[in-house]
Amino acid sequence: MRKDLGKKALLYPQPVLIIGTYNEDKTPNAMVAAWGCVNDFDKVTICIDKTHKTMDNIKANKCLTVSMATAANIKQLDYLGITSGHKVADKFAKSGLSAVKSKKVKAPIIKELPLTLECKVLSYDEETELLYTQVVGVSADESILNAKGKVDIKKLCPLCYDPEGHGYYALGEKIGNAFKDGKSIK
Amino acid sequence: MRKDLGKKALLYPQPVLIIGTYNEDKTPNAMVAAWGCVNDFDKVTICIDKTHKTMDNIKANKCLTVSMATAANIKQLDYLGITSGHKVADKFAKSGLSAVKSKKVKAPIIKELPLTLECKVLSYDEETELLYTQVVGVSADESILNAKGKVDIKKLCPLCYDPEGHGYYALGEKIGNAFKDGKSIK
Repeated sequence: MRKDLGKKALLYPQPVLIIGTYNEDKTPNAMVAAWGCVNDFDKVTICIDKTHKTMDNIKANKCLTVSMATAANIKQLDYLGITSGHKVADKFAKSGLSAVKSKKVKAPIIKELPLTLECKVLSYDEETELLYTQVVGVSADESILNAKGKVDIKKLCPLCYDPEGHGYYALGEKIGNAFKDGKSIK
Repeated sequence: MRKDLGKKALLYPQPVLIIGTYNEDKTPNAMVAAWGCVNDFDKVTICIDKTHKTMDNIKANKCLTVSMATAANIKQLDYLGITSGHKVADKFAKSGLSAVKSKKVKAPIIKELPLTLECKVLSYDEETELLYTQVVGVSADESILNAKGKVDIKKLCPLCYDPEGHGYYALGEKIGNAFKDGKSIK
């Protein structure tokens, strides 16, 4: 039996993305976003409310970093998620995380997060609040790479966000192969 | 030590979304997409290549369904992912899955998938291939709901897609609470 749950965008799983930018005084800022996805092999789209301090910074610098949240720093990352950069100007410093400047964009790379996309802004729609970005670099800690130098999803173990229960979840076991399992049906 | 992996949109986790539409002859069609996300509490954005049969159908009907892939039907879902609706007109029938018409949109609800968003098209950008949609209904099997009638992410167990290893992964254990864990830092 199926039920109607209304008009909610209940899409699963959602990522836990840490958006890194620089404030006017060149200190790092970061916020948490679940509303983002790939948009072409070298582009990423993120929906960011125009009232965030992060959007002020992105408009000023035309750059941002997008890092994947992982379990090790969940307390610090959640602090970034519940603290406004408008109200706490040094929220990033207070989080206890640390950053270095990206060599490719004017935005910070958070040292503790092992996978970071370095992005330049292509456009921002004030109405839909969709930020459309070009990936110009990927900074990955070698601890999450496999023998071929590619990201190993199990080593990365990215967090998943539950929009209804407001929980953070780990990645589970591999249960199938894309582009392979369906071949036997034909 | 961090390494530069180039200009790839390596965003994790990615969802496994099944996009349901109707062909001209009113038979169901479905494709698999990983490039989609929430865009406001009642909107969903998906990047769909304009050459897909699904896009022809969406342009004709202005409607689609977006269902979450789950482990039970992984073989059938992967078949939908590797088979073109242009080349195999009855790919949905061949997949072995079954569908009923949504009461809210001109698009099919796949019976075997327990969570489906019923969406109307707001816009499609031919250049960026971003499809921006309004969620007008959510059809959920009661087997995935908790006592309060909300989606229980562990009962749903949505698949996650690995863009580098091309694998499907299950959801793992809960490891934290959004909007709670970070409060103790301040």
